[in-house]
Amino acid sequence: MSPHTEAVDAPVRVAVLGTGQMGRLIGRILLTKPGLELVGVMARRPDRVGRDAGEVLELDRALDVPISATVDDVIAREPDLVVQATCSRLTEAEAEIVPCLEAGIDVISIAEEMAWPWASSPEWAGRIDALAARNGATLLGTGVNPGFVLDLLVIALSGVCADVRSITASRVNDLSPYGPTVLASQGVGLSPEEFVTGVQAGTVVGHMGFPESIGMIATRLGWQIDRVEERREPIVTTVPRRTPFVAVAPGMVAGCRHTATGYREDRPVITLVHPQQIHPEAEGIATGDTIDIEGTPHVHLEGSPEIPGGIATAALAVNMIPSVVAAPPGLTSMAHLPVPAALAGDLTRRPKEEAHV
Amino acid sequence: MSPHTEAVDAPVRVAVLGTGQMGRLIGRILLTKPGLELVGVMARRPDRVGRDAGEVLELDRALDVPISATVDDVIAREPDLVVQATCSRLTEAEAEIVPCLEAGIDVISIAEEMAWPWASSPEWAGRIDALAARNGATLLGTGVNPGFVLDLLVIALSGVCADVRSITASRVNDLSPYGPTVLASQGVGLSPEEFVTGVQAGTVVGHMGFPESIGMIATRLGWQIDRVEERREPIVTTVPRRTPFVAVAPGMVAGCRHTATGYREDRPVITLVHPQQIHPEAEGIATGDTIDIEGTPHVHLEGSPEIPGGIATAALAVNMIPSVVAAPPGLTSMAHLPVPAALAGDLTRRPKEEAHV
Repeated sequence: MSPHTEAVDAPVRVAVLGTGQMGRLIGRILLTKPGLELVGVMARRPDRVGRDAGEVLELDRALDVPISATVDDVIAREPDLVVQATCSRLTEAEAEIVPCLEAGIDVISIAEEMAWPWASSPEWAGRIDALAARNGATLLGTGVNPGFVLDLLVIALSGVCADVRSITASRVNDLSPYGPTVLASQGVGLSPEEFVTGVQAGTVVGHMGFPESIGMIATRLGWQIDRVEERREPIVTTVPRRTPFVAVAPGMVAGCRHTATGYREDRPVITLVHPQQIHPEAEGIATGDTIDIEGTPHVHLEGSPEIPGGIATAALAVNMIPSVVAAPPGLTSMAHLPVPAALAGDLTRRPKEEAHV
Repeated sequence: MSPHTEAVDAPVRVAVLGTGQMGRLIGRILLTKPGLELVGVMARRPDRVGRDAGEVLELDRALDVPISATVDDVIAREPDLVVQATCSRLTEAEAEIVPCLEAGIDVISIAEEMAWPWASSPEWAGRIDALAARNGATLLGTGVNPGFVLDLLVIALSGVCADVRSITASRVNDLSPYGPTVLASQGVGLSPEEFVTGVQAGTVVGHMGFPESIGMIATRLGWQIDRVEERREPIVTTVPRRTPFVAVAPGMVAGCRHTATGYREDRPVITLVHPQQIHPEAEGIATGDTIDIEGTPHVHLEGSPEIPGGIATAALAVNMIPSVVAAPPGLTSMAHLPVPAALAGDLTRRPKEEAHV
């Protein structure tokens, strides 16, 4: 193969579905990349439709790209690839993804369940794979988590092991920058009793993506996982913590300690830990990502603070574009494709190979 | 695609070229993997030829695989894939690799220059790619370094970045377990003056693989590297250090601090640091792997002690087998293929996909 499997002859025409925090960030990153062209943006919010994308992306210039109201309007702008950034669930993403695939357009989705659709819905995954393949389109789910820290990076590190007995990975982050919707989904501000009720009612969700991460890891390692157990526990603060959106008194809930364990013949083999709270530093808790593989050899890697979620997810969605364009048609995943890489330089003019030795 | 792109219908028939420390380790790991079958072993050392592989691999059982003297004898045993573990240089590896490729047999090489052959010899890389493709065979170079810690892992982490300004990665390891050949190649035991002379004469080699790692990173990021500068400096000990093979007095050389820097338009953008010495702990130096990416966001990851080199290289060579078998023909690389994963379970019977949500 050429060393430059990702090179393209002409700029890749990209459209973004969604103008929330993630959609706009993805749009702004796209515009910095020679070799990518932003040709369409769809907003779910009616007040944004028809405005110029430059304004909605908060740029100081017009892009001459009017915000579209529907997926069909975006498809009419003839993108090569669409980045879908509107939701978390397959059932909701499907209506936006299917028309793109049917039009032969590649799709990168940051919906959490799309990171490994075989986890929540293997039948759907099989159907969408066939649909994409039939239309010559490729479909990828990505994001920082699921999609990278607690799965792809774990898989990559396991590659140096002659055997693996168990895997533990944790991601401790800070919810302070987030808005009221995210805070509510983690139970921030509730009493411990309200938290428990919220978990039962499904209003306190915790992290979305554990079954996806465990499915991705287990599949690449070849482990049959018999069941996944998830636990959501309140992180009860002993000191006051406050953000612009919530004030949490001692004894109340500052976040959700969400863990998931994958069992293989009743033995826990994959344990993922993701406590999310506001101001962890208020109780001396450092944020960070940690991966431990018990095997031959043992592998331990850590980084503190954690890889920041928002920018990393947006960057991954953009950086995966060349690999998705080059990939064979069908449903794919981060675990199927070459490792992600920062898209620097110009995708249409890859560097020359020459010996420097 | 299926979630199990790597599944195979029948066990993969594998042969190993080389019965040094690495070849034997690779052979022993292979034998633990359901779905892989060891069908041949070639030794360069005449006294091993004709003996049973079980004896040479130091097992307590016979394998009914006689050690072969030549590559042709190994090819006659009809392997699907050959792991080549005899040397570091392309020029030396070529004679063993070419006949395998011509016979349509996939090859995984742990020769350092094979990790990214476009670095030392872009023309050779092009020729071998064409040869492999013509014969329906795939050729991969892998190893812990080059091949993983200071390149593939760096590339993967850059994937979360919206932009990257520069990269620094270091690997501090301990040479104490190694034999006299490795110690001499790092100048261990020399005086500082002898070290300098040895570097000039090419007897003190330092690390092999920097141009390969820099080439792999730069190519995936799309950076044009204008030149690579390497420096080999003596690590002069202030305390006595000793292994079974060498005793180093204060003022003498305990190892080689080898660094390489890739420049882009006169700006250093990739700096790789690999000090190798015996008993670093004697002067309070912790071993470990560290990656820092200056970009948006900054990314920092570290692990201490370092991922151990010998077992990791052998494990990677085995773990990459399914991806190489599944890959399209031609010269490939760790940066082209899906991330490595520990080969657990049975490759011929991959786990069922089912929802656990």
